[in-house]
Amino acid sequence: MRLDGRNDAQLRPVKITRGYIKHAEGSALIEVGNTKVICTASIDDKVPPFKKNSGEGWLTAEYSMLPRATQTRNARDISKLKLNGRTQEIQRLIGRAIRSVINFNILGERVITLDCDVIQADGGTRTASITGAFVATVEACKYLIDNGIITKTPIMDYVAATSVGIVFGHEMLDLCYEEDSRATVDMNVIMAGSGKFIEVQATGEQAPFSRNELDKLLKLSESGILKLIDIQKSALGPLTNYIGGITKDEKVHSSN
Amino acid sequence: MRLDGRNDAQLRPVKITRGYIKHAEGSALIEVGNTKVICTASIDDKVPPFKKNSGEGWLTAEYSMLPRATQTRNARDISKLKLNGRTQEIQRLIGRAIRSVINFNILGERVITLDCDVIQADGGTRTASITGAFVATVEACKYLIDNGIITKTPIMDYVAATSVGIVFGHEMLDLCYEEDSRATVDMNVIMAGSGKFIEVQATGEQAPFSRNELDKLLKLSESGILKLIDIQKSALGPLTNYIGGITKDEKVHSSN
Amino acid sequence: MRLDGRNDAQLRPVKITRGYIKHAEGSALIEVGNTKVICTASIDDKVPPFKKNSGEGWLTAEYSMLPRATQTRNARDISKLKLNGRTQEIQRLIGRAIRSVINFNILGERVITLDCDVIQADGGTRTASITGAFVATVEACKYLIDNGIITKTPIMDYVAATSVGIVFGHEMLDLCYEEDSRATVDMNVIMAGSGKFIEVQATGEQAPFSRNELDKLLKLSESGILKLIDIQKSALGPLTNYIGGITKDEKVHSSN
Amino acid sequence: MRLDGRNDAQLRPVKITRGYIKHAEGSALIEVGNTKVICTASIDDKVPPFKKNSGEGWLTAEYSMLPRATQTRNARDISKLKLNGRTQEIQRLIGRAIRSVINFNILGERVITLDCDVIQADGGTRTASITGAFVATVEACKYLIDNGIITKTPIMDYVAATSVGIVFGHEMLDLCYEEDSRATVDMNVIMAGSGKFIEVQATGEQAPFSRNELDKLLKLSESGILKLIDIQKSALGPLTNYIGGITKDEKVHSSN
Amino acid sequence: MRLDGRNDAQLRPVKITRGYIKHAEGSALIEVGNTKVICTASIDDKVPPFKKNSGEGWLTAEYSMLPRATQTRNARDISKLKLNGRTQEIQRLIGRAIRSVINFNILGERVITLDCDVIQADGGTRTASITGAFVATVEACKYLIDNGIITKTPIMDYVAATSVGIVFGHEMLDLCYEEDSRATVDMNVIMAGSGKFIEVQATGEQAPFSRNELDKLLKLSESGILKLIDIQKSALGPLTNYIGGITKDEKVHSSN
Amino acid sequence: MRLDGRNDAQLRPVKITRGYIKHAEGSALIEVGNTKVICTASIDDKVPPFKKNSGEGWLTAEYSMLPRATQTRNARDISKLKLNGRTQEIQRLIGRAIRSVINFNILGERVITLDCDVIQADGGTRTASITGAFVATVEACKYLIDNGIITKTPIMDYVAATSVGIVFGHEMLDLCYEEDSRATVDMNVIMAGSGKFIEVQATGEQAPFSRNELDKLLKLSESGILKLIDIQKSALGPLTNYIGGITKDEKVHSSN
Repeated sequence: MRLDGRNDAQLRPVKITRGYIKHAEGSALIEVGNTKVICTASIDDKVPPFKKNSGEGWLTAEYSMLPRATQTRNARDISKLKLNGRTQEIQRLIGRAIRSVINFNILGERVITLDCDVIQADGGTRTASITGAFVATVEACKYLIDNGIITKTPIMDYVAATSVGIVFGHEMLDLCYEEDSRATVDMNVIMAGSGKFIEVQATGEQAPFSRNELDKLLKLSESGILKLIDIQKSALGPLTNYIGGITKDEKVHSSN
Repeated sequence: MRLDGRNDAQLRPVKITRGYIKHAEGSALIEVGNTKVICTASIDDKVPPFKKNSGEGWLTAEYSMLPRATQTRNARDISKLKLNGRTQEIQRLIGRAIRSVINFNILGERVITLDCDVIQADGGTRTASITGAFVATVEACKYLIDNGIITKTPIMDYVAATSVGIVFGHEMLDLCYEEDSRATVDMNVIMAGSGKFIEVQATGEQAPFSRNELDKLLKLSESGILKLIDIQKSALGPLTNYIGGITKDEKVHSSN
Repeated sequence: MRLDGRNDAQLRPVKITRGYIKHAEGSALIEVGNTKVICTASIDDKVPPFKKNSGEGWLTAEYSMLPRATQTRNARDISKLKLNGRTQEIQRLIGRAIRSVINFNILGERVITLDCDVIQADGGTRTASITGAFVATVEACKYLIDNGIITKTPIMDYVAATSVGIVFGHEMLDLCYEEDSRATVDMNVIMAGSGKFIEVQATGEQAPFSRNELDKLLKLSESGILKLIDIQKSALGPLTNYIGGITKDEKVHSSN
Repeated sequence: MRLDGRNDAQLRPVKITRGYIKHAEGSALIEVGNTKVICTASIDDKVPPFKKNSGEGWLTAEYSMLPRATQTRNARDISKLKLNGRTQEIQRLIGRAIRSVINFNILGERVITLDCDVIQADGGTRTASITGAFVATVEACKYLIDNGIITKTPIMDYVAATSVGIVFGHEMLDLCYEEDSRATVDMNVIMAGSGKFIEVQATGEQAPFSRNELDKLLKLSESGILKLIDIQKSALGPLTNYIGGITKDEKVHSSN
Repeated sequence: MRLDGRNDAQLRPVKITRGYIKHAEGSALIEVGNTKVICTASIDDKVPPFKKNSGEGWLTAEYSMLPRATQTRNARDISKLKLNGRTQEIQRLIGRAIRSVINFNILGERVITLDCDVIQADGGTRTASITGAFVATVEACKYLIDNGIITKTPIMDYVAATSVGIVFGHEMLDLCYEEDSRATVDMNVIMAGSGKFIEVQATGEQAPFSRNELDKLLKLSESGILKLIDIQKSALGPLTNYIGGITKDEKVHSSN
Repeated sequence: MRLDGRNDAQLRPVKITRGYIKHAEGSALIEVGNTKVICTASIDDKVPPFKKNSGEGWLTAEYSMLPRATQTRNARDISKLKLNGRTQEIQRLIGRAIRSVINFNILGERVITLDCDVIQADGGTRTASITGAFVATVEACKYLIDNGIITKTPIMDYVAATSVGIVFGHEMLDLCYEEDSRATVDMNVIMAGSGKFIEVQATGEQAPFSRNELDKLLKLSESGILKLIDIQKSALGPLTNYIGGITKDEKVHSSN
């Protein structure tokens, strides 16, 4: 049916390798079909000015592609002295997604910086980045607890993401590049383990879409994300203990 | 009920002044409550490389705020040598929104550049920019026809946009800045005159949202956008003749 | 006689609207014929390094044009990553002009930042910016006094500016764009309410000018600036009480 | 009387060394007291877009200081990624000054680029740059004629410049750095060999100035510039033949 | 003996994986101990200006590190708007090294761009980049021949590189990061398959070195590089046929 | 024999003028044939972050060329917003070279910034910069001692540098530009007064070189550098007392 033989509601093969980069506090290589992203989570004590003396931490994300991750070579941002608009949009999205499940009181005044570097691109790099970056974040929080820096996990819930879209009139899950470039409607959905939405972005630049189409796409994305969270759980193994059981409002009782 | 006495499903007062800037081919000042944006549409013959010899035109948008449009002064982008990520995200959004209703075969090999400059900000600047930029675009297309540069309008349908969100647990339409900064869920919706969606962006960084909440917000946005399109029609007056009656696939018959 | 029917010694219609931008401590929209500039004055506590612990404040200015303020669209500075030379020259000029009438001992260790954003240009934008920025500065000083931050006005005198030039062999006051682009000699004059000069810049790139021509131009500018100061007074109304009666050397007696 | 024993109407010792840089088509080292500037004039065939196919040439100038030309070290522009505002102002001034005496029809479609690099600064670097750059320009025009590229000189007249100012209440000619930093009024005057003014820039940031003071300063500058032109003539020797005898409107008769 | 048990003349384990990135014309992952570099070779038809209409091609290299390739996170170049000096030095070195064995007449007017992206760093990243980039270049030349774009290989010889240094008074081969940071003398050697040197860079910032020490280091590097070339041969397998048998001066006989 | 009549082992005429720039703590103009470089050494109290509270100082270098130092004009770095790769490489080299003979304990927590500005280039600008910058550094250390800022010299030994290369099959000393552009092997050697090497950089981009050729070039460079050190001694005169008699490990005994 689809270019690679999948049916419309089927994910590509997904593989998450934890601890891929030895220097980082947390890291993962995520492979979604031919899309491959190295995700690292780095801990730093320097919070941004708006968090100083707040007792709260922060999390930011950066996203980039190697020049030859794509079919034709892209010049590096530095050679143009400009950070690409698409890149900025994606790294803001990754940051918001992971921040939505972090209790920053528990993290305390420190920053987690996520780096998502696409080494090979075949569609869905931003959603793969989110799914992989979550795993790297869990590893980094384990590091903080193992080293006695914090006493309980700041991670409230799972986060994973996928793309869906309308291609040749069909609603499809997890578009590869060839499908994505033919899609009339393109949608990225980020969901928590609770089944609630964290972000929904649907774009119909090629053709506006009806409420009915939107509903079908949302349903399709939901089934995909639940499978992705299962894959995260397998990759995390015993580290699943570092997730959940707290809320946004819960504060640390010890002096931080 | 709300900070400024509106009920949850009520827009702020909206005023669109056409022809606000005399040099531009198209222009409008849009005021949505205290949010004020100058929108201009400029025509240029130089298409980007990927449109050369395609017979098709293009449309891009730029968005900016005057340094003191906001409660505290923001440094200009040039003083930091960096285009703000939020700015990039918004100008990409405006471009996609207006492009979705343009037939680029009819426009021919020329570019419409939209400039949306916020002179005073009180929430909803990106959606006000889209609603106002549409009016400026219609004026610019009238200019092209009046000057014999093209023979029929490339504008297929209306476009307008609004924000909705959940504030203190209530779904509300058209958030002002005070409401926006307290919203747990924030959503921007762009819709065509046909009632179909062009873009839906919902973010629950503060709290994930359920499918039920999403549905309520979509419905609220729909009612608001239909009212905004009525206001566009009043502002356009006889220029409403320059909108519609064509499709994406329709081509020009004359040699361009 | 002139393109718009004025005689050589006549200003264009000038209108100054105080309080044009609600967020700024001081603001004005100045319209000189078709030239329109939004001027805001922002107060900040952070003085530049060379004023730290001096007990003295500072004032700087920024100037910019919206991309479509002009007959053809100009790319934004940020898209070229360079601040235009002409822009730099003008903002330095505006800063010097307004600083010349401020007693920085009385202002104390704080900074007034002036933003002059041209929304429509038709010649004389730098001199209109100075004339309008002065009004915004007075509003900002009123704000400082009303809020008990300083106890008396730091403004020593009025400042206004105009352009003069030689066009088709005639000395003319207040050149519009069409005249300016045909002028062989172009001159900007900034004067204080005392009738003394703050800055005189005369350029004869197209043709050198004699001492006699210089004298005629200076006289013409003087008459124009005195009228502009009258217009400032009308716009300021009761705020004229915030101007004058002090000198550069006068110090504050209270501990600041 | 003055810090270095000069009287108020006296220039510092001035020395102009022609042909200082062997690679350039024209060059000069100008020394005005302790101020030393290397000026080069380079010829290039590539005119800016606005001169293409016009038959006319162009001239631009760049100005810079070595980091340790001054009493304390200044960081290079490139380390800040910003061209200093003062630098831009000065290089625009140098360009206008020399352009005012060039007939660009005779020069034909080529560009003269002047580089004025201050190797030691002691006040008056912009006026020394103009006086020296003129000499380099004459050498470059000789090169064009000697190599048969153009057939007659495009230089219509001499240009030289000096500073004057009011220091401790006295009008003084050719201010050194110590005087300049104490001046209440500061003025740069550029004059042609005809005795007409090319540019007059007077600034009273520290204290506004009267018409009477302006007149005295203009007179003082005039006497200084006439002496500087005599020094240019001595430095040029037989090259004085490459100056004058033509006007702005004179065109070349041969096909260019 | 050494930190990781090696003797002074021993390389770390080296592994080269060809075809690591599917989109690139040539690619390799090289692992030298814990140092890991992704090398890609991209083909483009656009030669730099100085090669236009020369019938000759060109090769350039870019080098970068992922932010968390190192023990502490490094900010991306784009966030500082500056390309790091060390980075520039290294990418110039890689380019020179590989260019030294390419016959650009045979390559014809096209460019090979090498991208060396360090995903994990543990000393010797520049020499690993050269050794890996050579393999990617061979793959890209095979691609050119397989696709009938060129008819014979432009690669004249092998190139590989290693570091040597003096650590605690011992000459050592292939320094890891810990050794490198303790070295008093640090040297990078690039050698061709012929046993001749392409580049020798020895630095004694911590302590000058004698001729005798230099000789010992050169000898040590030679033995290491010969082993690296053997590893390249194993990785290349049948692609070794694409190397050698031509010289710099050999020209293509067909019209290019 | 050579283009300018020298024999293969002969330096060009070298002239070093101390105290060339009056504002700098140390300065020299070095002329090597037609290559001319202004070198200044500036003292500053602000050490880089990695030296704070270390009791140790630092030394950095910057290198630049005037736009018309070369046969054709080069655009300034600032006009491209990028620091040229070659420039970065050279300034890092100069810094390493001079740092290798400074005892930073004795210098104490202050920075010496070297500026090497090439005013005329004819090959060998980087090695001339090093040879000249050393003299400027000695002057600056004399300044520190004369002003009682430090009590003994931090300079351990002499440093000088030259280029050698293989041109038309001959090993030659001190290449001028014409020779350099024809060289198949190009080498820069930096040596201390002790006869030990500080840096050796040999490049065979045009043709790999044998061990035998390397040996001959090293020997040639050695003879040249010893002559350059003699010329430094003559230029320094009594300042030679500020060099030597200490080692890297020697510490200051007084509290700094």
